[in-house]
Amino acid sequence: MTQGFDGGPDTGLLSPVRAGVPVEEAVCDRAWLQAMLDAEAALARAQAALGTVPASAAAAITRAARAEQLDLRVLALAARETANPVVGLVQALTRTVAATDPAAAEYVHRGSTSQDVLDTGAVLVCSRALGLIRADLTQAATALTRLAERHRGTVMAGRTLSLHAVPTTFGLKAAGWRQLIVDAEARLAGVQRALPVSLGGAAGTLAGYLEYAALDGPGMDPGAYLDRLVDRFAAETALARPVLPWHALRTPIADAAAALSFTAGALGKIAADVQVMARTEIDEISEPGPAGRGSSSAMPHKRNPVLTTLIRSATLQVPALATALTQCMVCEDERSAGPWHAEWLLLRECLRLAGGAAHTAAELTGGLVVKPDRMRENLALTGSKVVTERVAAVLAPRLGKARAKELLTHASTTADQEGRPLAEVLIEIPDVARHLDAKALEELLDPTAYTGAAEALVARALDVRAPTDQRTA
Amino acid sequence: MTQGFDGGPDTGLLSPVRAGVPVEEAVCDRAWLQAMLDAEAALARAQAALGTVPASAAAAITRAARAEQLDLRVLALAARETANPVVGLVQALTRTVAATDPAAAEYVHRGSTSQDVLDTGAVLVCSRALGLIRADLTQAATALTRLAERHRGTVMAGRTLSLHAVPTTFGLKAAGWRQLIVDAEARLAGVQRALPVSLGGAAGTLAGYLEYAALDGPGMDPGAYLDRLVDRFAAETALARPVLPWHALRTPIADAAAALSFTAGALGKIAADVQVMARTEIDEISEPGPAGRGSSSAMPHKRNPVLTTLIRSATLQVPALATALTQCMVCEDERSAGPWHAEWLLLRECLRLAGGAAHTAAELTGGLVVKPDRMRENLALTGSKVVTERVAAVLAPRLGKARAKELLTHASTTADQEGRPLAEVLIEIPDVARHLDAKALEELLDPTAYTGAAEALVARALDVRAPTDQRTA
Amino acid sequence: MTQGFDGGPDTGLLSPVRAGVPVEEAVCDRAWLQAMLDAEAALARAQAALGTVPASAAAAITRAARAEQLDLRVLALAARETANPVVGLVQALTRTVAATDPAAAEYVHRGSTSQDVLDTGAVLVCSRALGLIRADLTQAATALTRLAERHRGTVMAGRTLSLHAVPTTFGLKAAGWRQLIVDAEARLAGVQRALPVSLGGAAGTLAGYLEYAALDGPGMDPGAYLDRLVDRFAAETALARPVLPWHALRTPIADAAAALSFTAGALGKIAADVQVMARTEIDEISEPGPAGRGSSSAMPHKRNPVLTTLIRSATLQVPALATALTQCMVCEDERSAGPWHAEWLLLRECLRLAGGAAHTAAELTGGLVVKPDRMRENLALTGSKVVTERVAAVLAPRLGKARAKELLTHASTTADQEGRPLAEVLIEIPDVARHLDAKALEELLDPTAYTGAAEALVARALDVRAPTDQRTA
Amino acid sequence: MTQGFDGGPDTGLLSPVRAGVPVEEAVCDRAWLQAMLDAEAALARAQAALGTVPASAAAAITRAARAEQLDLRVLALAARETANPVVGLVQALTRTVAATDPAAAEYVHRGSTSQDVLDTGAVLVCSRALGLIRADLTQAATALTRLAERHRGTVMAGRTLSLHAVPTTFGLKAAGWRQLIVDAEARLAGVQRALPVSLGGAAGTLAGYLEYAALDGPGMDPGAYLDRLVDRFAAETALARPVLPWHALRTPIADAAAALSFTAGALGKIAADVQVMARTEIDEISEPGPAGRGSSSAMPHKRNPVLTTLIRSATLQVPALATALTQCMVCEDERSAGPWHAEWLLLRECLRLAGGAAHTAAELTGGLVVKPDRMRENLALTGSKVVTERVAAVLAPRLGKARAKELLTHASTTADQEGRPLAEVLIEIPDVARHLDAKALEELLDPTAYTGAAEALVARALDVRAPTDQRTA
Repeated sequence: MTQGFDGGPDTGLLSPVRAGVPVEEAVCDRAWLQAMLDAEAALARAQAALGTVPASAAAAITRAARAEQLDLRVLALAARETANPVVGLVQALTRTVAATDPAAAEYVHRGSTSQDVLDTGAVLVCSRALGLIRADLTQAATALTRLAERHRGTVMAGRTLSLHAVPTTFGLKAAGWRQLIVDAEARLAGVQRALPVSLGGAAGTLAGYLEYAALDGPGMDPGAYLDRLVDRFAAETALARPVLPWHALRTPIADAAAALSFTAGALGKIAADVQVMARTEIDEISEPGPAGRGSSSAMPHKRNPVLTTLIRSATLQVPALATALTQCMVCEDERSAGPWHAEWLLLRECLRLAGGAAHTAAELTGGLVVKPDRMRENLALTGSKVVTERVAAVLAPRLGKARAKELLTHASTTADQEGRPLAEVLIEIPDVARHLDAKALEELLDPTAYTGAAEALVARALDVRAPTDQRTA
Repeated sequence: MTQGFDGGPDTGLLSPVRAGVPVEEAVCDRAWLQAMLDAEAALARAQAALGTVPASAAAAITRAARAEQLDLRVLALAARETANPVVGLVQALTRTVAATDPAAAEYVHRGSTSQDVLDTGAVLVCSRALGLIRADLTQAATALTRLAERHRGTVMAGRTLSLHAVPTTFGLKAAGWRQLIVDAEARLAGVQRALPVSLGGAAGTLAGYLEYAALDGPGMDPGAYLDRLVDRFAAETALARPVLPWHALRTPIADAAAALSFTAGALGKIAADVQVMARTEIDEISEPGPAGRGSSSAMPHKRNPVLTTLIRSATLQVPALATALTQCMVCEDERSAGPWHAEWLLLRECLRLAGGAAHTAAELTGGLVVKPDRMRENLALTGSKVVTERVAAVLAPRLGKARAKELLTHASTTADQEGRPLAEVLIEIPDVARHLDAKALEELLDPTAYTGAAEALVARALDVRAPTDQRTA
Repeated sequence: MTQGFDGGPDTGLLSPVRAGVPVEEAVCDRAWLQAMLDAEAALARAQAALGTVPASAAAAITRAARAEQLDLRVLALAARETANPVVGLVQALTRTVAATDPAAAEYVHRGSTSQDVLDTGAVLVCSRALGLIRADLTQAATALTRLAERHRGTVMAGRTLSLHAVPTTFGLKAAGWRQLIVDAEARLAGVQRALPVSLGGAAGTLAGYLEYAALDGPGMDPGAYLDRLVDRFAAETALARPVLPWHALRTPIADAAAALSFTAGALGKIAADVQVMARTEIDEISEPGPAGRGSSSAMPHKRNPVLTTLIRSATLQVPALATALTQCMVCEDERSAGPWHAEWLLLRECLRLAGGAAHTAAELTGGLVVKPDRMRENLALTGSKVVTERVAAVLAPRLGKARAKELLTHASTTADQEGRPLAEVLIEIPDVARHLDAKALEELLDPTAYTGAAEALVARALDVRAPTDQRTA
Repeated sequence: MTQGFDGGPDTGLLSPVRAGVPVEEAVCDRAWLQAMLDAEAALARAQAALGTVPASAAAAITRAARAEQLDLRVLALAARETANPVVGLVQALTRTVAATDPAAAEYVHRGSTSQDVLDTGAVLVCSRALGLIRADLTQAATALTRLAERHRGTVMAGRTLSLHAVPTTFGLKAAGWRQLIVDAEARLAGVQRALPVSLGGAAGTLAGYLEYAALDGPGMDPGAYLDRLVDRFAAETALARPVLPWHALRTPIADAAAALSFTAGALGKIAADVQVMARTEIDEISEPGPAGRGSSSAMPHKRNPVLTTLIRSATLQVPALATALTQCMVCEDERSAGPWHAEWLLLRECLRLAGGAAHTAAELTGGLVVKPDRMRENLALTGSKVVTERVAAVLAPRLGKARAKELLTHASTTADQEGRPLAEVLIEIPDVARHLDAKALEELLDPTAYTGAAEALVARALDVRAPTDQRTA
């Protein structure tokens, strides 16, 4: 064992995507400890409400359940002996309660089991973190709504397979980014709403809880007591009621993993697009930058796209972590020896990386610098070849689809090879000239006039209720 | 290029979990090809309904859109030249249509783009496969309902961290398995309901579709045409309407991946439990076995648990494949150069492995052989130590929680070391004898009397609407 | 079970990256079946060499061990009953042998177990596929050697965090790509060399093999017989000798997975770079393109970068598949119930996706169109800002490092904002003018003169032995 | 930004597998910071050795390069502005040096770039952690050598597909575990040996380094200087020389990921086996347990298998993390905007989870309690059916292979159904009685006499050089 080492601060040095981001504090070791203590206190209060524990004891336990009174490192080291930190936590909490109210100490963790406390604590941490993440996503969605509206007419090159395809608008692009964020927020909201308390006792039958209750009144009906205890525990923690104890039925964790992985993917798409558009040669967009942001240790002229870099760094990690969480569903027996224990760190990292990415995305979208002039310049780069699809469509009914496409393919190649404007090449082709005069051709070859239903699509997409509305619905 | 090799049959030799399972046929190369052709035909009919394509052309295209008329291998090889099979498919379909109706051939793939056809086809394949998978899950859930009811009073050892913990019932275990399957089915149903058509044209603006429509009537309103075209295309394919073209917004695929990964995890939990319980030393459960099932190439006496083996083999693969699908959300531009192309195989494998596992689970749960006698024998193995929690709970109010637990821990160790019954050791302890006589102790030490709320939990779990009901709700 | 469905052809429609690529045939169902039959035949010959099996029987078994004589689909369906295809294969092979030599049929699979045959077969398939993949990598490395040499002086913008940083050369870039391929090939070669036969019998003790041998001569020493049998089996299959039976020690498979994942990563890096450089705005490189290559179903002018698209599609899949293979190391008991069964499909897909990517990379690198003029034009885009690092280095000793960097940062921003050349801005700054005259500044600001040790690095990298040499070393 | 929050201690509460384990300290934030400072200092000394930096400046930089002088949290927060912590670190180090030696401050980070420092630092951290992990693996291998020797004759049931198959020995099982650890150690050793310094400058051409060198002596040959600088830097850090700058060629990281993933898989196999054998019903093995180890918060009698639980928790995470590291190979340009940044946390977690697992495995194997009597009792459970393979082998030459197997299958089923000993059933079968008398049959049916080459295999496996020897070879 490392002598005199306390585990060290986790400053975010290795994951700047979440350094200083609110979710960081919501998921730190101390937050987890507090959440587990909250679970113990809520359980005592729930039992008190049902008469199994004296009200005064529940109050004493609630008063004592403060993370700052416990030594995190000692608990962590003790956890190696029992494979989870709850055994040590219960001992420490019992001591703290006993120091002021020895009788109350008897009621700590009454009838309970480690996993009830740790799972309920994990779910509390998760719920709090999801609240922060959803707020950041909502902020980003709002910013993107603004961008989509402002740029609904801003024409740019649509790019497919990395090449200019046909024109699109930046408004449509922003609306698409927003849609992904709206989707992510909706999935996280669904997960958060469904996060349940964990209450099963040693092997999921609640036998321990019932045994203590039965001591007080032997006529108790197990089903009725069960219902009341779970209801009350859920009320005390503001969490949902599970259908069954879920020690070995890991739906809530798997659902959280999937939604966080989706969120990372959604943000990653936006970051990927921004990085492409920010390239030196393309330069259609810049990240927002206060002084010093994005500076390089070597190159004085650089202003690196750091926000998208941070987002991408998170995006590359979360899905892999989330897979491992899903795999932890495969847990043997009433409670497993390993899969459950693997979840804690994975869930925490998913929350803080997704949370860091969401926070960073809110900053990114809120200050994105859009350059419509550059978009127009780039659109002109291919000399109208970006609208060959349109010309082909116009000629197809006259020449046949195959002939029209072949003709355009050939003209594009000729224009490339001879370095001439496409219009010039086209008008020399009898089959074209027969059907289109120079003016008609010029109009057809105007990229800004070929944006299809882009504007209508933006309008429809923004009509979709934003995250805020959905929550109140 | 491999001379004269046709890609070879995929017989299921390397994935027996899906050999001969219905989903196999629903996702084979031919099924994908047919689904893409269905998309082309549905598009033509939708355009016909809007007047952009003659009804007779749509009919001719629909007639020609038969997978058996095309050479799959030729299309596959051609796909290497264009990175997707649609370019070749459109050429082939055009030729087929032209053979009987040259005028109609002009209307094939009108205004469309590869991804609209391939995505819509993929979604059709996915939807069909999900229907099969959901049916198998529903069947498994029904079988588990039966098992949970029949065994609601069948006591067995609850196992945690691989050791006997406290008693539970097999009914509660079966109800837990059922709950996972109900959860999986609900997630798949949600995904299936939301699967949308893909309709965006070359870069997601539908410009190509509008251009052709505009030729007929220049006064057309893009938004109105867009709405009508998407509605009609959705109606023709029985798929949902997307908010936006989703060429680069991969929510539907990511959602499908997550739900299939969840399904694999749910089935994997069941398989893991059954394998534990089927072990030679435990022997509480057997897989259903017609003659020859589970035989070994070497050992005459063996009847291997093949169904759970097959399920586990799928469970180990699907989450990894699903991760990669989620990662494909990070796709640059209006259409990406790689991520989209990676999805097809991954999605197919997720569907057929999850489908194979679901089918196998239906067979497994439908014929599971449960051995209540063996459960009771195993429960007796620890000589009542499986209920020390209960004795501790009873003594705690009299001796204090700490003393009670310590006393039981010590007595358990003594019983182990001296090979004596726990009751005998306990009754010799004055602190125990003072509070409990031999009869009371005997009653307390009866494992079958300590199943907590197991029966009530089963009743509540089975009350949850089964998959079938949910769909009709 | 699906009536009358034969599993369907796997034409490559959904994974064009490997359609028609040699590795496809090397890993198809028939190839796996043949490899398992090769294992059975080699085992019989090895036993014959040791006197356990008559030479004539070994010859008869070898003659009968032809995949085309067996019905793959029947074996696949039978595999569902036993969780692996070997039980059925042994029955079928026995029948085939018996048809011409009933006595020899007694010696089929003598003393053996399913896993010995399937693992040895898997390793044979793997070895053959690795040979093909290595050949393609060697070809790509050779092409990149040529490119690195030809372009050792071709200056281009070095890009970091997606922006122009300082100049580099395309030769150095190509040398880096080559190095990754050399590394990949070396890892695959190491794996291939070490691929061992599988010989353990029912539970890894070789008891079955020894029992048959003992019947002939009871004085046999187990260790000596073991050594001779393994040696001979290795010789017959041209595979390596394992230290121990590896039914549950999956080092060879995990190593193959890691090396194939590395290969995918290496090729993915190259594809990512080429895609960036091929973008419309950057246009420094094009993929080789015969007529029709890269055409779009919608846009006549497009020539999509299909080779890199295919490579990236594989790159996105292989690491995820390889993870699952590594996870299969965690297999319980002497032979596991699931992890082993998951390996077959995963290994096959890793081989054919990595193989398809390697083949595609050979084609890509062999015909890459490099455009030094465009590289030079792009380098000029930032008006010398790409060498601010250099000017800062020159000024640092005179002005202090901090002042020099700050001055350059400021000058870069000014040049940007005022749209003026950096040289013009710099020369107006007294601190610069004091130390550098216009001519010195001009020389310093020439991007083509600031390529550091690029040329020397290329020379050193190409000095590293290429794949071909390594193999003969 | 979270007000007044310092990132919080990472106490190991959520990953008890590594709480207090030496590797924890070796990879903490402070260790990373120190390693980066070591890289800066080594670079200055290397440059001093070549005359580019004054010796006194290198000495001052070396003296100042102490992590305890810097504020980690400030650096972490600053890293959000530049996407990596080196920009802030260089500023802070420069200030520290300047405080005592202003002239020396000019030479900090001379010609360098963030990635050179961070990569070299990462590699130093990795190397130190690998040293610790290898030591733990070596200790575990030694313990397993002892177990394999001691138990080379300890017969136990070989288990396949979760059922008793044929006998094996615990010695062979231990030798197999040891082999996996030897393999893991060898792979880690190979990685550690090859870990290279990172030295490329802003875009991998070393131009910055050369520029400063050129100022001193313009006649300098770039290649010669490059060679000397890299050599010297490698010597100062005790790391290897790379072929090329590897900013975007991530072979070292991918190799480390693969070897750590392998290590986790190897340890996971051992943990899986121990957990099976420790089950209440099987009880052939116990984890070593000081008082309190493995206690439950609920159940007084339990002594949970915590060491294997911890190992499995790590095993479930490392391969997923390692995949993401491999995927980071796909990094665009000369230095990437995201993939590089994702590596740090992933690599750290791989190291500490694999390190925690290795340390735990050393403890587990060093004190494993093996119960040969229980092994023998379990072996007897199937009443000799575990050796039906042997009887079939003996009868095959007399009755034909098919008839012999069928006869044994039938007799096994009869024995099961009628609850009779297999011997009794067999001897009643004329075909058996004709060839074997009761005594011969009894000998054949003795499970302890059918362990094949188990003992010889152990001897051969232990002959393989252990980790310690390999290192000195």
